[in-house]
Amino acid sequence: MTNQTALAGDIKDRLYHFLGAPEGFVPLHEPEFRGEEEALVTDCIRSGWVSSVGQYVDRFETDIAKVCGTRYGVAVVNGTAALEVSLRIMGVGPGDEVLMPSLTFIATANATSHLGAVPHFVDIEERTLGISPKALKAHLEKIGERRDGSVYNRETGRRLAAVVPMHVFGHPVDMNGLNAVAAEFGLQVIEDAAEALGSLYGDKPCGGLAPIAALSFNGNKILTTGGGGAIVTNDETLARRAKHLTTTAKQPHAWAFRHDEIGYNYRMPNLNAALGVAQLAQLDTRLAQKRQLAQAYLEAFSGHPDLQVLAEPEGARSNYWLNALVLAPHAAAARDTILETLNGAGLMARPVWEPLHTLPIYADAPRADLPVTMDLAARIINVPSSAHLVGALACPA
Amino acid sequence: MTNQTALAGDIKDRLYHFLGAPEGFVPLHEPEFRGEEEALVTDCIRSGWVSSVGQYVDRFETDIAKVCGTRYGVAVVNGTAALEVSLRIMGVGPGDEVLMPSLTFIATANATSHLGAVPHFVDIEERTLGISPKALKAHLEKIGERRDGSVYNRETGRRLAAVVPMHVFGHPVDMNGLNAVAAEFGLQVIEDAAEALGSLYGDKPCGGLAPIAALSFNGNKILTTGGGGAIVTNDETLARRAKHLTTTAKQPHAWAFRHDEIGYNYRMPNLNAALGVAQLAQLDTRLAQKRQLAQAYLEAFSGHPDLQVLAEPEGARSNYWLNALVLAPHAAAARDTILETLNGAGLMARPVWEPLHTLPIYADAPRADLPVTMDLAARIINVPSSAHLVGALACPA
Repeated sequence: MTNQTALAGDIKDRLYHFLGAPEGFVPLHEPEFRGEEEALVTDCIRSGWVSSVGQYVDRFETDIAKVCGTRYGVAVVNGTAALEVSLRIMGVGPGDEVLMPSLTFIATANATSHLGAVPHFVDIEERTLGISPKALKAHLEKIGERRDGSVYNRETGRRLAAVVPMHVFGHPVDMNGLNAVAAEFGLQVIEDAAEALGSLYGDKPCGGLAPIAALSFNGNKILTTGGGGAIVTNDETLARRAKHLTTTAKQPHAWAFRHDEIGYNYRMPNLNAALGVAQLAQLDTRLAQKRQLAQAYLEAFSGHPDLQVLAEPEGARSNYWLNALVLAPHAAAARDTILETLNGAGLMARPVWEPLHTLPIYADAPRADLPVTMDLAARIINVPSSAHLVGALACPA
Repeated sequence: MTNQTALAGDIKDRLYHFLGAPEGFVPLHEPEFRGEEEALVTDCIRSGWVSSVGQYVDRFETDIAKVCGTRYGVAVVNGTAALEVSLRIMGVGPGDEVLMPSLTFIATANATSHLGAVPHFVDIEERTLGISPKALKAHLEKIGERRDGSVYNRETGRRLAAVVPMHVFGHPVDMNGLNAVAAEFGLQVIEDAAEALGSLYGDKPCGGLAPIAALSFNGNKILTTGGGGAIVTNDETLARRAKHLTTTAKQPHAWAFRHDEIGYNYRMPNLNAALGVAQLAQLDTRLAQKRQLAQAYLEAFSGHPDLQVLAEPEGARSNYWLNALVLAPHAAAARDTILETLNGAGLMARPVWEPLHTLPIYADAPRADLPVTMDLAARIINVPSSAHLVGALACPA
C-alpha cells in the first residue's frame, strides 16, 4: 500500500464518518427546492407570461439587487452573458486586454473573447484563491505603459482595459487591495461574483464590491434559476444600458422595431425568474446550512498533516459554495489517487479547473508569471457540498 | 372623415365581426398551455434536474428533430444563439459577409455581427416575403467575383460565405430556387426557421430544407419554452459540433475541465425543455387552429379593394404564425391610421420590422437594391393571431 492509497483511504473514511456512508452517488452540488418553487412556477405558467417579460423577472431583479446591496439588478440568461455585457458596458472592446485569474471557470475568458478582447492572466494568492493585488501591481509595473490616461501592455501594444476578480468557491478576493491597484492604473473592475452569492467582504456583500458585477444561477450554484445570471450595479446609467443591451437594444415604441445598438437576446425568461424568486427566499437558510457543512469539513480535517480544508479569508464570510481540500505540497502527487478513490466510493470529487493558460485555446494569451496558480491547481480537490448534506451530520452512520 | 379613417374603421369592424368585440386588449400572439405543461415542469423541479442536462432536454431534442424531419436536434437558449452557432459551424467567421433579407427580425443580423461577420442585405419577393432567388442571383452576378472556390464581394473584398433565408410569419421561402443559386455560387445555406415550426415546403418541413437550421421558442412563437431555440440538422458531425460548442466545448472527462474551443454557454435548461416537451405534443392542434384562424381572415377580407390577407405561397403550407394584412399600394398611406385605430380598439396590430438597412446600426452594411423590401415594409400590418382566437369564431358577437 502506497502512502497515496493510504491518504486517499483516510480521506474517504473521514468523509464517510461525518457524512454517513452514501446511498448511491453523492454529487458535488445539488440544488434544493424546498420553498415555493412549484407554486410560483405553476403560477407563472397559468399567467401565460413565461417568456421575456413578467412580474417574476421584476421581482427577481429587485430581490437579487437587495442581496448584493446594490440599487439595480438585471436578470439575464446566464453568468457568461452577464460577464460579456458587463465587460462591454464598462468599455471593453475588440483588441483590448482584460486581466483575470487563470484559475477560473472558462466563462471569464470566453466572455472576454466573445467581445473580441483578449484574456491576460495574472497570479493568485493562496489565502483567497483569487487575484493577488500585490502580484497584479508588480506585473503592471513591469509590463504596463501609461498613455492617454490608459495603461497599455508594452509587449503586445494593446490597452489593458479592465480586471475581473473572481471569488473562487465563494471566498472573496482581497477587493480593497485590488480596487486600489485598479484605481492606480486606471483599470475598470468587473466583479465576477458567479460563485459568491451571499458571501461578505467585511460587511459588504459580494456583487457590490465593484461598479458592476456578474452573477450566475446555473444548476450547480447555491441558488438556481435552471440557467440564469444577473448584472448588479449601483449606477442607474449602467443598469439601464445593461437592460437595453440584453433585450435586443430595442427603443421603446408602441409598435415600431427600432434597435439603436447591436444588442443581445440575453433576457432571463419569466419562467426561470419564478424559480429564482422562490430560491432567493431560501438564501439565508442555505447559507446557514453550508456554513455548518463547511465547519464539519474543517473539524474533520483539523490538524491533518497532509491537507487542509480551505477556510474563508480573514475579514470575510464565505458562502462556502464548494468545499475544497488543499493538499500539502508533499502530498500533491496523491491528487488523482484521491479523486479516483472518492469517486469510486460514491463521493463526487474533482480537481479545480485546469488553469486557462494551459489550455491550447488560451496558450497564446498574454500572462504574468503564475507560480501560485500552477502550484495550487495541482493540489485542490472539491468535495460534496450540497446544503442538504447537513442532514447527515445530525445522524452520523 | 378621410378615406384613411374609413378604411381603418372598416378593418376594425370586420375584425370585431369575426373575432367578437374584445374583452380587454387582444395581444398579437399569446402562448397556449393546454397540455402537460404544469405536470412536466413540476416533475422536472421534483427531479432536481432543472439545469443544463436532463431527460427533458434529451426528449425535446428528439421531438424537435422529428417535427423538422431531421436526424438531430440541439436545444439552445434562444433563436439568436441557434443562428450564431449555426453560422459559425457552417464556416462563417470574422470579416465574412452573410446574405440575408433586410426584412427580418434583428436576430438574423445580430447573430452575424456577434461572429464578427457582416450582414449583406438582399431583396425579397412579394409572394413569400422571403429572399427572391431571382434577385439574389442577379445581385451575385453583379457584385460577385469567384476566387479559390468561393465568391467574393468585389466592392468590399470580403468573402460571401453564406445566405440565410428567413421564413417570414411562417411562409416558406422558395427554397428550391434559393438552394440552386446558393449551389451555383458556393454559398452555405443556414435556414432561419424561427417563425416556421410546422410549416411545410412541398411535403418537407421547414427546418429541414438546408444543411442546418435555427428555430426559436420565444414566448411569442407558435410553441414556447419560455426562452429557447434549437439547431436541427441531418449531419451527425454538425450536430455533435453544435452540442459541443453550445456546452462550453468541454471535452468528456470524469473530472477534468478541458475545453478545446472557445465555446458558448448556450444550452437550454431542462426546466425550459420540460415546458417545450409539453408544448410540442400540442403542435398539430395549434397548427389546425391557426389554419382555421387564417382562413377566417382570408374570408373576411376576400375581394377587399384596399388590402389582402397574406396567403401561403403555392406549393407550401404555412403555419400561419402571424396573420398579415398587405395594403394595396394606393392604401399604403393609411398604415399608421389603421395601426392607431386597431390598437385603440383593443386589437393589437403592428407593422412589420423596419428594414434592417434603414436602422443606423446597419446603414453601412452592404446591400443590393431593395425595391420590393421598401415597398412591402410600408404596407404590412400584423393582426391578432393567437390560436385560442378560433374559439371566438364559433361564437361571433
